[in-house]
Amino acid sequence: MKIGIIGASGYTGGELLRLLAMHPEAEVSAISSRRFEGKEVWKVHAFLKGFYNLKFCTPEVENFSDCDLVFTAVPHGEAMLYAPKLLELGIKVVDLSADYRLPKEVYEKTYGKKHTAYLEAVYGIPEIHREEIKKANLVANPGCYPTGTILAVAPLAKLELIERVVFDCKSGITGAGESPSDFTHYPNLHESIVPYKVTDHRHLPEIVQELSRFQQDLKVYFTPQVFPGSRGILTNAHVFLRGELSREELYKIYEEFYRDCYFIRLQDEVKLIQVRGSNFCDISLYSANDRAVVISAIDNMVKGASGQAIQNMNLMFGLKEWVGLKIPPLFP
Amino acid sequence: MKIGIIGASGYTGGELLRLLAMHPEAEVSAISSRRFEGKEVWKVHAFLKGFYNLKFCTPEVENFSDCDLVFTAVPHGEAMLYAPKLLELGIKVVDLSADYRLPKEVYEKTYGKKHTAYLEAVYGIPEIHREEIKKANLVANPGCYPTGTILAVAPLAKLELIERVVFDCKSGITGAGESPSDFTHYPNLHESIVPYKVTDHRHLPEIVQELSRFQQDLKVYFTPQVFPGSRGILTNAHVFLRGELSREELYKIYEEFYRDCYFIRLQDEVKLIQVRGSNFCDISLYSANDRAVVISAIDNMVKGASGQAIQNMNLMFGLKEWVGLKIPPLFP
Amino acid sequence: MKIGIIGASGYTGGELLRLLAMHPEAEVSAISSRRFEGKEVWKVHAFLKGFYNLKFCTPEVENFSDCDLVFTAVPHGEAMLYAPKLLELGIKVVDLSADYRLPKEVYEKTYGKKHTAYLEAVYGIPEIHREEIKKANLVANPGCYPTGTILAVAPLAKLELIERVVFDCKSGITGAGESPSDFTHYPNLHESIVPYKVTDHRHLPEIVQELSRFQQDLKVYFTPQVFPGSRGILTNAHVFLRGELSREELYKIYEEFYRDCYFIRLQDEVKLIQVRGSNFCDISLYSANDRAVVISAIDNMVKGASGQAIQNMNLMFGLKEWVGLKIPPLFP
Amino acid sequence: MKIGIIGASGYTGGELLRLLAMHPEAEVSAISSRRFEGKEVWKVHAFLKGFYNLKFCTPEVENFSDCDLVFTAVPHGEAMLYAPKLLELGIKVVDLSADYRLPKEVYEKTYGKKHTAYLEAVYGIPEIHREEIKKANLVANPGCYPTGTILAVAPLAKLELIERVVFDCKSGITGAGESPSDFTHYPNLHESIVPYKVTDHRHLPEIVQELSRFQQDLKVYFTPQVFPGSRGILTNAHVFLRGELSREELYKIYEEFYRDCYFIRLQDEVKLIQVRGSNFCDISLYSANDRAVVISAIDNMVKGASGQAIQNMNLMFGLKEWVGLKIPPLFP
Repeated sequence: MKIGIIGASGYTGGELLRLLAMHPEAEVSAISSRRFEGKEVWKVHAFLKGFYNLKFCTPEVENFSDCDLVFTAVPHGEAMLYAPKLLELGIKVVDLSADYRLPKEVYEKTYGKKHTAYLEAVYGIPEIHREEIKKANLVANPGCYPTGTILAVAPLAKLELIERVVFDCKSGITGAGESPSDFTHYPNLHESIVPYKVTDHRHLPEIVQELSRFQQDLKVYFTPQVFPGSRGILTNAHVFLRGELSREELYKIYEEFYRDCYFIRLQDEVKLIQVRGSNFCDISLYSANDRAVVISAIDNMVKGASGQAIQNMNLMFGLKEWVGLKIPPLFP
Repeated sequence: MKIGIIGASGYTGGELLRLLAMHPEAEVSAISSRRFEGKEVWKVHAFLKGFYNLKFCTPEVENFSDCDLVFTAVPHGEAMLYAPKLLELGIKVVDLSADYRLPKEVYEKTYGKKHTAYLEAVYGIPEIHREEIKKANLVANPGCYPTGTILAVAPLAKLELIERVVFDCKSGITGAGESPSDFTHYPNLHESIVPYKVTDHRHLPEIVQELSRFQQDLKVYFTPQVFPGSRGILTNAHVFLRGELSREELYKIYEEFYRDCYFIRLQDEVKLIQVRGSNFCDISLYSANDRAVVISAIDNMVKGASGQAIQNMNLMFGLKEWVGLKIPPLFP
Repeated sequence: MKIGIIGASGYTGGELLRLLAMHPEAEVSAISSRRFEGKEVWKVHAFLKGFYNLKFCTPEVENFSDCDLVFTAVPHGEAMLYAPKLLELGIKVVDLSADYRLPKEVYEKTYGKKHTAYLEAVYGIPEIHREEIKKANLVANPGCYPTGTILAVAPLAKLELIERVVFDCKSGITGAGESPSDFTHYPNLHESIVPYKVTDHRHLPEIVQELSRFQQDLKVYFTPQVFPGSRGILTNAHVFLRGELSREELYKIYEEFYRDCYFIRLQDEVKLIQVRGSNFCDISLYSANDRAVVISAIDNMVKGASGQAIQNMNLMFGLKEWVGLKIPPLFP
Repeated sequence: MKIGIIGASGYTGGELLRLLAMHPEAEVSAISSRRFEGKEVWKVHAFLKGFYNLKFCTPEVENFSDCDLVFTAVPHGEAMLYAPKLLELGIKVVDLSADYRLPKEVYEKTYGKKHTAYLEAVYGIPEIHREEIKKANLVANPGCYPTGTILAVAPLAKLELIERVVFDCKSGITGAGESPSDFTHYPNLHESIVPYKVTDHRHLPEIVQELSRFQQDLKVYFTPQVFPGSRGILTNAHVFLRGELSREELYKIYEEFYRDCYFIRLQDEVKLIQVRGSNFCDISLYSANDRAVVISAIDNMVKGASGQAIQNMNLMFGLKEWVGLKIPPLFP
């Protein structure tokens, strides 16, 4: 399988390259970056020195014509420039931007820009849409927060047990990208937890969309924040239930729902560094009267982005979803 | 004013010493530590070298007989050994343990031990109990989480506007004390947010007790966690309201409630390092339909413990509550 | 005493404001920032909300005409625009930039720019130049690394005991200023120690200049790096001695040299957080054959910048150097 | 190849398990831990849930009789209890303790204990002893600091160019092990760099031993410290040269020396997180007159311990040294 990456100079692109270097079936054959055109991979991603002999090209679709699949790891609004053309050439696409995650009108409202090349795509959480992904040519890779939150409560939503749920999420700062900003400035983050978009983060419509497939009438609240760390999203889902469930009942429900899901691990306690660098989503469950607390931990750059994208790629090519992704977390 | 500290070798004791070194009216005249009896302050608190010539004594009450006020900064269950005797000697007491925060039976159930010397005390949040504190001889200094959570929503509770509230709190690791443990082991905390006592932390009864004074029928949920930092508690209060309030209305309610409170600062955005080392509680407010999000930031060692204890001491001696505490935060 | 700050919106300016808020003799009467002209202090320094009612003005010297002393906390090359005019108006100046630390030609070579208003100044390390500072109208406040390194080995240099010395220094990232950059980008610093200007940092001439006053023939080597923390400079001085000295002899030499220096504390072991937020320079000493290792710890923003500037201010006004600076470190 | 690990519950053991899970030729068949005997791997190493079905056994040699090679990851002084017996059974041994790194008398003096089962072993830095390792049955895996320091200056020592060298090393705190202590207590490390064993760390004899093989008359100085991070050792080697070398000449010497060494990467700048989780040793070189500064970066748990142990294992079995270890670093 020949793989291309449009937008390979950022964190998400670098992470795709890191993971694909360990993939037995995939070979990266083209990577683009306008800014670094002509440069070797390791001049941009020094940590990858010794792994690739590639040079960055420009993102024109022609440069990717021999690829079987292309990852678009570009800013929101740019994937739509490439995806339709790639699909026309018979190339599968996994889009890591938000361009194909939402219905056209919701996308335009949420991201404040026109969608000039709308297409239907499959929403790429394999634990929920595995069969559709296998048949898809265009997969919209989910946002990092949606991955952590949806996986945290999907089993309860499926049983329509949720009255309302408050997601209080903490993300590592890599979620803000590789460009320095006030947000990523070291003194602004150390010794702090920084809430932002407290009631109106644009990942909320994605979360609602997916949970509503299971249960239409649930109420969803979402507050994100960054914590002083590089990778990881810890999601505290405070779930107000219809009726009471013991801790044992909760675990049973989740075991059942995630029975064949290699990347979901139920743990007594979750810890971000117990999933760091890996594609796992660890989940632990707590119960107290009418409230359940579900805590999920993912690496935002892996299960929350590039790892899940490769998991989708595997399925789109008929491989087991874990091929090349059985990588233990880097602990501690 | 002569001040004593029973249990002066831990973080809370060290912080009392730090703050009292800058207090114009208080002089520390006796400090105890069984473990370090006979040692100079700076042999235990090297950071205080040059500030005190005191040596640690044993905690017998006689060693504190010339004090006007004693802080008991000992583990839960030990303050009850000293407080009654000190009071008998006419010495005022601010207890930083949990021994006098709750009614006897609630205390015994929550902390799993007999209370052998129960007394009525004033709960020491000056912003709420200022007048009673002025007249008190025994003040129960609040827990760190209760301080952050109660201050976050008291104005709404007073107006009986809360249907339910979820407190999702993140504390610096100094809250776990100066003894090394798995919990405080560096590799177990870095790059992580660690929830614990997810549904049953023993600070919950304190929070409920104080908020119930304002509004009896509210529902309170509380999940604490530690974050990779030393000081600070960030509280996200997800408040489900009876009716809707705009952001402006929220700020107005809080300005009114905290009108004469030097240590409460309403901010557009709060940040833990913007209160670090100081006695401030910064608060910011957000609104979305039926939910308000209130975010409060305190330094768990200052407003959450030793600073608030000195604020109480000031009031008990007829001083302005901010005497010796007008210390700007250490930013960044 | 009326105090002005030209360039008050950055970290150094904010730190001056933090410290001066606790100074019993100084009143800040004018602060400038081109960028934030007309804004209140707390809109830029939110952590100072409640401490100042000032607004930022422009840096024209006229705005500072009622000041007794002005701190110039501006980039290198800009202090020379203000210092001479201020001095002409009879206003004392403590310059926190590099403009007056070096002889004209050394400055121009090191900083790569013309010096358009050269004046003789006193180099502001009070522990070394106290008497000259008392009489000075213009004091050049030292660089952060020079402060930590010079104080670490001055006692040995004075006795001409040094053959050569390697300074391996680790600084908190606030030394890089408040503007986001690749250097201050959180993911680039966390879990790392980042050496930079490995053999040619521009603080080297300052260090050599001051140590040469004591001992002309010593050889000085200097490698700086940043560590994942906000404040502090830890200096490891690997000193190759002429002859051997035991640990006890080392401590004796330092006690003698720093006899009347309030801000120098000899410790068994130093720790950055044991000086954090304070004006102390803690020093510990180790000996092994022909090598001594001297470790010094300062807060780069206090003793390495704004605190030392106020210490100089005190001396210039005939006050004890510690007035307003007896602030215990913020530990831990 | 069947692999055993004696002492598999600590960080080093966990890291061996992490890396061996990705090794195509090795199968872990027995692991011991007295403390956790009978427990499944994931009950101790939760991050490895899903990777192993093994249970911990006791460390008796009989439990490892079907192994081809055993890693001894036990405290200093314990490996000598197992290594000779394993070798008698024809089982190869890579010892990660210090027991076989030094001559008997040096070991006894350095570690303060009798060596009750001394044997000659090969010192396991493949870049230096590759051919001997291929033929060895007992390999002494180097200490973490020795790995970083020796690799940093071996090329210069081989040419006998070093007059003296000062190693100023910064290690992540995992080097202190998985047991909580004052040293690993979060508040004692955050915002700090903590020197320890400033002139007399017990890794010094190892460093001297290996560098002396190349150049007998060099002088070595070594000061270790921990920094606020989990993994990594950054070594600053301040080398005083016999004669001057330009930066280009330095790079040439290192390229030549490390020509066929997959795990040595010469970089313009090194960064700890650019080697994190991997077996690489990145090196950058600087020159100024008579001093060269060599900076090396390793992950102390991989190239500084378990990764190098597997590299040795590969060679002992006739495999390419990089088999199973072509794992890209986890950046950022």
